[in-house]
Amino acid sequence: MIIAMRSDAAEDQIEHVCDRIREFGYTPHVIRGEERVVIGAIGRGDNKDHLQTLRSAPGVAEVIRILQPYKLVSRELKPQKSIIRAGDLEIGGDEFVVMAGPCSVETRDQLMETAHAVKRAGARVLRGGAYKPRTSPYDFQGLEEEGLKLLAEARQQTGLKIVTEVVTAEDVDLVAEYADILQVGARNMQNFALLKRLGNARRPVLLKRGMSSTVKELLLSAEYIASHGNDQIILCERGIRTFETATRNTLDLAAVPLLREMSHLPIVVDPSHGTGRRSLVCPASKAALVIGADGLILEVHPRPEEAWSDGPQSLTLSGFDEIMGELRRYAHLEARRIA
Amino acid sequence: MIIAMRSDAAEDQIEHVCDRIREFGYTPHVIRGEERVVIGAIGRGDNKDHLQTLRSAPGVAEVIRILQPYKLVSRELKPQKSIIRAGDLEIGGDEFVVMAGPCSVETRDQLMETAHAVKRAGARVLRGGAYKPRTSPYDFQGLEEEGLKLLAEARQQTGLKIVTEVVTAEDVDLVAEYADILQVGARNMQNFALLKRLGNARRPVLLKRGMSSTVKELLLSAEYIASHGNDQIILCERGIRTFETATRNTLDLAAVPLLREMSHLPIVVDPSHGTGRRSLVCPASKAALVIGADGLILEVHPRPEEAWSDGPQSLTLSGFDEIMGELRRYAHLEARRIA
Amino acid sequence: MIIAMRSDAAEDQIEHVCDRIREFGYTPHVIRGEERVVIGAIGRGDNKDHLQTLRSAPGVAEVIRILQPYKLVSRELKPQKSIIRAGDLEIGGDEFVVMAGPCSVETRDQLMETAHAVKRAGARVLRGGAYKPRTSPYDFQGLEEEGLKLLAEARQQTGLKIVTEVVTAEDVDLVAEYADILQVGARNMQNFALLKRLGNARRPVLLKRGMSSTVKELLLSAEYIASHGNDQIILCERGIRTFETATRNTLDLAAVPLLREMSHLPIVVDPSHGTGRRSLVCPASKAALVIGADGLILEVHPRPEEAWSDGPQSLTLSGFDEIMGELRRYAHLEARRIA
Amino acid sequence: MIIAMRSDAAEDQIEHVCDRIREFGYTPHVIRGEERVVIGAIGRGDNKDHLQTLRSAPGVAEVIRILQPYKLVSRELKPQKSIIRAGDLEIGGDEFVVMAGPCSVETRDQLMETAHAVKRAGARVLRGGAYKPRTSPYDFQGLEEEGLKLLAEARQQTGLKIVTEVVTAEDVDLVAEYADILQVGARNMQNFALLKRLGNARRPVLLKRGMSSTVKELLLSAEYIASHGNDQIILCERGIRTFETATRNTLDLAAVPLLREMSHLPIVVDPSHGTGRRSLVCPASKAALVIGADGLILEVHPRPEEAWSDGPQSLTLSGFDEIMGELRRYAHLEARRIA
Repeated sequence: MIIAMRSDAAEDQIEHVCDRIREFGYTPHVIRGEERVVIGAIGRGDNKDHLQTLRSAPGVAEVIRILQPYKLVSRELKPQKSIIRAGDLEIGGDEFVVMAGPCSVETRDQLMETAHAVKRAGARVLRGGAYKPRTSPYDFQGLEEEGLKLLAEARQQTGLKIVTEVVTAEDVDLVAEYADILQVGARNMQNFALLKRLGNARRPVLLKRGMSSTVKELLLSAEYIASHGNDQIILCERGIRTFETATRNTLDLAAVPLLREMSHLPIVVDPSHGTGRRSLVCPASKAALVIGADGLILEVHPRPEEAWSDGPQSLTLSGFDEIMGELRRYAHLEARRIA
Repeated sequence: MIIAMRSDAAEDQIEHVCDRIREFGYTPHVIRGEERVVIGAIGRGDNKDHLQTLRSAPGVAEVIRILQPYKLVSRELKPQKSIIRAGDLEIGGDEFVVMAGPCSVETRDQLMETAHAVKRAGARVLRGGAYKPRTSPYDFQGLEEEGLKLLAEARQQTGLKIVTEVVTAEDVDLVAEYADILQVGARNMQNFALLKRLGNARRPVLLKRGMSSTVKELLLSAEYIASHGNDQIILCERGIRTFETATRNTLDLAAVPLLREMSHLPIVVDPSHGTGRRSLVCPASKAALVIGADGLILEVHPRPEEAWSDGPQSLTLSGFDEIMGELRRYAHLEARRIA
Repeated sequence: MIIAMRSDAAEDQIEHVCDRIREFGYTPHVIRGEERVVIGAIGRGDNKDHLQTLRSAPGVAEVIRILQPYKLVSRELKPQKSIIRAGDLEIGGDEFVVMAGPCSVETRDQLMETAHAVKRAGARVLRGGAYKPRTSPYDFQGLEEEGLKLLAEARQQTGLKIVTEVVTAEDVDLVAEYADILQVGARNMQNFALLKRLGNARRPVLLKRGMSSTVKELLLSAEYIASHGNDQIILCERGIRTFETATRNTLDLAAVPLLREMSHLPIVVDPSHGTGRRSLVCPASKAALVIGADGLILEVHPRPEEAWSDGPQSLTLSGFDEIMGELRRYAHLEARRIA
Repeated sequence: MIIAMRSDAAEDQIEHVCDRIREFGYTPHVIRGEERVVIGAIGRGDNKDHLQTLRSAPGVAEVIRILQPYKLVSRELKPQKSIIRAGDLEIGGDEFVVMAGPCSVETRDQLMETAHAVKRAGARVLRGGAYKPRTSPYDFQGLEEEGLKLLAEARQQTGLKIVTEVVTAEDVDLVAEYADILQVGARNMQNFALLKRLGNARRPVLLKRGMSSTVKELLLSAEYIASHGNDQIILCERGIRTFETATRNTLDLAAVPLLREMSHLPIVVDPSHGTGRRSLVCPASKAALVIGADGLILEVHPRPEEAWSDGPQSLTLSGFDEIMGELRRYAHLEARRIA
């Protein structure tokens, strides 16, 4: 249920409505839009009918039932697109934001070379895994805190923001010390302990769709983070698992405009995992821009054939440069800026 | 195995190579490119090593083994993109070809109104089903020949080409009398009796990907048609069946550049079936253009809420007009013309 | 809508109800059960409410709306299991019927050796493909009518019934001359032209589930055959296509009791295609029996390593013998006979 | 690589081989079988060729390369089935072990009533969720430690062992205090931080297959636990996500004999989640027994229509009783005991 306040509603009227919501057994979430304030009444209170009585409370314009199981992240609750901020960077606004970097942080040289190159080409965020969720225990598991330190060093050298994956609730505080954006990988999209902890983090979260998750489940996972207190969430389509084996995953690009209808959160696309083949990353990136994504996250490596993970889908530095050039040709048609 | 002739090879040298191929138990397929002639030796002959001896035959430049199970439709055999012609219309060339019309031919009024409108908006081909493969026997099964006649009348009135589905081998000749392009629906992609018969048809074939078919299987189905004598084939990505239920199918747009690498055949995209939701058709159409498709096939109906089939995914006439406008904004960046 | 007649309803009362049904624009289907007659009113008549008026017609016990889109094959219409007969063989009754034989009819020797062996081991039906729907046009396509003649010869020698695939509507009459049961393969489950023609055939049809078809779609395909006049249908679960690649398909054994709840038709299981691995066929066969299937269809070859198709999933003659032994150990617990 | 010792190998010879393995950069895992000792050399050492030199070390019978990416859990390493012990209960031995109980621990009454009933009917382990991974943050999340205490109380009253889910690495120690077997749910199958922590737990782990995980990925997740020190693992097939919506999941019963070929670990089946429909649980349970499972895990609730979660798939107490009766009829044919 959401309570839309009149545009001239006073603070004490808002406060009064929140008090009543609590009395009825729900939790109020106040969303301050540009034109007016909307209050979500979330939870499993036992007085659903009583909420309707708020219709007559002073300052209330309307009381609307949200039919979808996701509430705080829904477009019903907040019709305008949200802009997520990481320092001076805005995701979900006019800028089409490209995040790029290696699958794994491997060495200082590899990371710095990549960071400088993607910065020059127009990336705004450096990606790189320090904690790697790998299918086999015998595969490289990441440099862990050492990797985080290298990422922080790359930020200092280049001014890029840092996005990196956190794989367990226990690591959230540590990773948040170094990263600007905390990434939840596909395998952890329904790691609810992690999602709850991220609800307390003071960093934006980039939430990847699980490999067999519906868009509705993705939004419910975002709702976990939001309902635990952190509404700074970026959704990420990264391909789903299907019977097709010619590509690593099936990139569900139509999910982008679909999520746009369902949610106010920004949406980025990961064509590297979404296709798993270097030669498909450029066309898929262009399509992602044109279909309405707010940005991309791309794997780039100075020497993909030597990469410790995901070599076949990693772009070379010059390949990334070419993609940025291509994207710039299309961006203005979408009324988007690219750095 | 393919035998590439020298650019100065004489006709009798080509004939000689074909004779030897037959002796070895294979069938020769002569492909006359702009620069030179290439001869495919297809089938299950028992003299694979003997084929290599053709290397020393007069006029032969090289003998190359094709590793893929699809041969005639492969890019290995013919590196240049094929252009498929329906009268004066070229598919796979510079023009981005839009096919549009109702799911089913319902009435003369419905069809003519739609035909004139899509023609005005820039479509080059009119789609419309006269034979409808419906999941339930109690659903509308199409007007059959009466529908074909209405399509032919619409062609006469508008100059649009006609694409319509043929659902069984027995109907191929009849449908080919009326249609310019014969469509094979997703459910019939592995109806091999139909594919073989289409190998004898003198019309181009638009072959839709089966709802659970891999791209490799799509190419092998195209190979059926080609190996039976008809190489005028247009591939069509129309979405695959996955666990996701928010969209009717999952549109596999990355399959477009992937098929481009694998095959020389033109590729069109069907965002109507691919998404099943009217609001997603426009963004998906733009993405299809930008990711490299040669055209689109779209469902359009004057009054979708009254459509006898596929209403929820059908565009209105004005909705189609808007999409064409959008596509024109992007086409030049792809070096494509749109009518 | 179904009209259940009273147990003492007279023939002319039945005829009267049928006439009224026709007047209302529906087609009557008379089902004569052991206790009473039930009449289905099928189709898209325009007088749904009028049907209710039949409630007061003489001899009518009840008028019941069938909610499912499949009507004639539904358990709502006919609560008792159907028994399908091929000569003296009953499928769906007390006997657990095993159909066995090679994927393809290859040679007289191969077929006769297999036929005698499976007969000795307890099979009641010989399977073998004369028309093979193969993914590649360069794969063996079957011996066609020559294969049918060999199957008929094997029947004469062994007394086994014959089940073999028909791949196109045009072949139905020819195949029906030789075969006792007509098989529709997974790729043709939605070849509606074929299904309609089978509605006129005087042979039982074994209808395989499509590789990406829901159980509801399977029943609607059966409904095509039934609504065109042939209610002698055997359903077949043969595995569906999923992301798992360790098995050829994912055998959906729970579909057996589910189909049992939904339909009165007999159900057999094909563990050969369902798993694609010889070593899994025996355990899957036992499970199919115990989960409630009415029979099995199994691939058996004297020398699987030399089979022209499906070698890896074909049982040896002795392997088949062992499975029959295993099945006999369990059959009595299911109150089933095995030959 | 595994080093099989001669049956008369002495302890110091075993020790010597382990030392050399460490020198070469690998970790030795000693498996003491009934006939002889086998040593796994696991990891990414840089002296693969040197391992071969162990062939000539005293006491060594053979050095065998394990080709599969899973090593410790593979049947190549240990051909005999493993038996996992929880107190006096053996899983993977002659007994067919049934685990039963509610989806969620709700109240003391609900749990004790269920526990006594399933104990009487023949269950050996009580299941019940205290920490619930729910798709929506607004759904019941479990009683947490309070639920664990109730489970422990039920154990005391009934003598049943307890299996319950642990959803995050941080909770492993707490849950291990109360539970006899720690369950990893489908959504956490690739929560590698959790798996690593379970490698240190002194409790057996019941590892559920992820809803879109291959059997190979399931074994690699088991390998995580084993390679971190805990080889007490029970695999659980619980259905995979497919396009079929008539059942909650598609229960992949053929995965049971397949996993048996690949791994020495015991395998149980969860037909409740695997089908999602109460009426299918009994036939699927019988099939699981016959196809070779070592046990079942079943949802049972005194009043399923009032269950706080998973009502539609929960058995009633009497329904569970009937299933146990059915299972006993079949168990002796599999040479299995049921309590």
